Amino acid sequence: MGFKIGLLGLGTVGTGTVQILLNPSQRHPLVQELELYRVGVRSLEKSRAIDLPPSIITTDLDAIVTDPDIDIVVEVMGGLEPARLLILKAIAHGKHVVTANKAAIARYGAEIFTAAEKAGVYVLLEAAVGGGIPVIEPLKQSLCANRLHTVTGIINGTTNYILTRMQTEGGDFASILADAQRLGYAEADPTADVDGLDAADKIAILASLAFGGRIKLPDVHCEGIRQVSAADIAYAEKLGFVIKLLAVAKREDLTTETPTTETATLQVRVHPTLVHTSHPLASVNGVYNAIVIEGEPIGQVMFFGPGAGAGPTASAVVADILNIAAILKVERGAATRSNGQPLLDPLLACSHQDYCTIAPMSDLVTRFYVRFLTRDFPGVIGKLGTCFGNHNVSLESIVQTGLRDDLAEIVVVTHHVREGNFRTALDEIRVMEAVSSIASTLRVL
Amino acid sequence: MGFKIGLLGLGTVGTGTVQILLNPSQRHPLVQELELYRVGVRSLEKSRAIDLPPSIITTDLDAIVTDPDIDIVVEVMGGLEPARLLILKAIAHGKHVVTANKAAIARYGAEIFTAAEKAGVYVLLEAAVGGGIPVIEPLKQSLCANRLHTVTGIINGTTNYILTRMQTEGGDFASILADAQRLGYAEADPTADVDGLDAADKIAILASLAFGGRIKLPDVHCEGIRQVSAADIAYAEKLGFVIKLLAVAKREDLTTETPTTETATLQVRVHPTLVHTSHPLASVNGVYNAIVIEGEPIGQVMFFGPGAGAGPTASAVVADILNIAAILKVERGAATRSNGQPLLDPLLACSHQDYCTIAPMSDLVTRFYVRFLTRDFPGVIGKLGTCFGNHNVSLESIVQTGLRDDLAEIVVVTHHVREGNFRTALDEIRVMEAVSSIASTLRVL
Repeated sequence: MGFKIGLLGLGTVGTGTVQILLNPSQRHPLVQELELYRVGVRSLEKSRAIDLPPSIITTDLDAIVTDPDIDIVVEVMGGLEPARLLILKAIAHGKHVVTANKAAIARYGAEIFTAAEKAGVYVLLEAAVGGGIPVIEPLKQSLCANRLHTVTGIINGTTNYILTRMQTEGGDFASILADAQRLGYAEADPTADVDGLDAADKIAILASLAFGGRIKLPDVHCEGIRQVSAADIAYAEKLGFVIKLLAVAKREDLTTETPTTETATLQVRVHPTLVHTSHPLASVNGVYNAIVIEGEPIGQVMFFGPGAGAGPTASAVVADILNIAAILKVERGAATRSNGQPLLDPLLACSHQDYCTIAPMSDLVTRFYVRFLTRDFPGVIGKLGTCFGNHNVSLESIVQTGLRDDLAEIVVVTHHVREGNFRTALDEIRVMEAVSSIASTLRVL
Repeated sequence: MGFKIGLLGLGTVGTGTVQILLNPSQRHPLVQELELYRVGVRSLEKSRAIDLPPSIITTDLDAIVTDPDIDIVVEVMGGLEPARLLILKAIAHGKHVVTANKAAIARYGAEIFTAAEKAGVYVLLEAAVGGGIPVIEPLKQSLCANRLHTVTGIINGTTNYILTRMQTEGGDFASILADAQRLGYAEADPTADVDGLDAADKIAILASLAFGGRIKLPDVHCEGIRQVSAADIAYAEKLGFVIKLLAVAKREDLTTETPTTETATLQVRVHPTLVHTSHPLASVNGVYNAIVIEGEPIGQVMFFGPGAGAGPTASAVVADILNIAAILKVERGAATRSNGQPLLDPLLACSHQDYCTIAPMSDLVTRFYVRFLTRDFPGVIGKLGTCFGNHNVSLESIVQTGLRDDLAEIVVVTHHVREGNFRTALDEIRVMEAVSSIASTLRVL
């Protein structure tokens, strides 16, 4: 039956979304049922990285959100207006909406979700937080049996990139910010990132989902990283910490044995924070994002991945589209069938029937670690090296590490090699007079 | 309208599941619509940690899976039989099924899913892999727009606990296994864990979901950790690696520019592996699990959390129940309504209307790091300490770290203190004659 998509915006994320939609092979079969029906852009003149039929491109964005044929409007234009107005108009016209617009949702979420509920449509926003990292949907679905009490995230890639470089290079904020701008990791006006405003938008959204209530953005306490100095990073390191810009939302009223069902009392805050090196968030570096969610009875789970970028963000956008399409299939199926078998949600049901072909291990290409015990004959390292070489097993290192029980211990690490070749070489080595035993063979990731 | 649950098994996971179902406050409102209708156990005599009305407990498991009133059968008894037969009978009677049984799904998945498809019912299994970590649902939903090519996981807590202790203590496998058995981290018969069989079951399930094809369990290459010695762990560490039992599923035919849509050719394997310390999986220690999923265009995402335990596993079981309940609501709503507004999926829609109460920052209880520049007066550390003490700000450390621009630099780390008290103390310290400036104030996680 197919689902018609109206796309608003053809920038980085929009282009990534189109690339998935136009190239469905080896993705979920439901992608093939998505039809890129209209694409709204600011200018028809701009040259594009992707080839689209001119007939589907328009600058008339209103015509897209009101088009009676369109099922799902995908807003990836960003900014507050006209994004907000277009989303509201799409909702008023009965369209389901997928958006990556954290700024608009954090500010106008109340208005948008009230309108969506009234109109009976979905507004999904996986791409608004954490780029491609699944975190919104796990919060809404996989973790919904829990009483959540804390969400802690590194959810701004620019500041994490700057802090990571300050940590590893010992440089000062201003010089590394300038370099990040030059390299495209920070914008010309870096305010939204370095002052924590982008992270504040995102933690407001996460808090709202985790704790089931709306958040007023001005209530979010927000400190950026301009005040973090090289000296502080150095002292923190001596004390066993790294400094990260954390966004934290914490429920305060779960300490009582008999929790009330009243509206939650929360802390919601963004600030640079000393994180002990043993904490899972301490090793989240560069432009990566990670979100730790804690609750009862789950304990602690963490989601880690690329927090931005065309591909990851588009992955989240299309996942939302597919979620809506799957539900619409169930709904239409249920509404139209007279009797017989119900139509299952194609994302939840398991329908594959073919068996995968499994490659033999001998064809595996991997690295190996192998430890030999050898009699201390002259030239034993040379003999091992030659034998591996004869079988196309290229070595990264071969080291005699010491003596064990009067035998010389030799540790070899290979480059990526065919497992079959490696095993053939090992069979020859095993019977060498100089070799007492092959003590262990392990693969290297 | 409510959903009637028939629970098979009241062991650790079953008890955790009941505790969530009977205590719905502050969880998703849909939990309140789940009715624990029948509970099947092996013996009525056994004493239980939870109080259930005797009328709902039975040893007649067949009566549960055939009960016409039951909507969803939850199988948490474990083992191959009678679990398989009961699941198949439940499906044949039109029940949706939630199971935590990785062994049964890895072996009989083909039979079970074929039956489920024929009957038009869901079989969900989030709890079968990674305990409470959301990974099955993200694979099926959040990542379904991707062409996945690799799934790499630490998915057996017992072996990760043993390897972590071997790493940190330098002990040998046999002695640490014995200690783990004594402490309850390994079973009396540890074969399924230490020989990699449990991880093989789980990676077969993950591979099947990631690559959309069935996997024959005997095709999974499986090596356990008995052969890993203290010597290998020590050498690996010298080379910059830790040793982990990894489960890997990799698609081999995605290297071509024009991927075919034929059945995937895969490697699926479990073996001890040297993992470089810079890799996100290297720092996954103890009984924690983590799964890294890679694909196009997502890049790399990782899911981390508790891989076992009553609470986390029950969180996954109830999430599956709620997913089915949500879909059934949509389906029943669509089928029964004559006109008017469609019924939205209560897990995907956003319906909360109340605002959360945000606590003032002065009420926050947190740790602080603060750096002072002071004139080198005698007793300045004492003055700072006294002032903090007067305001109930307890200190973890106070250290004069050196001189900077002729000023003495003093770094203070507090215990958990009320932010308001801390700020009041800072206001007093700021005007002390000995204090030149408060160079930075950061919070500590």
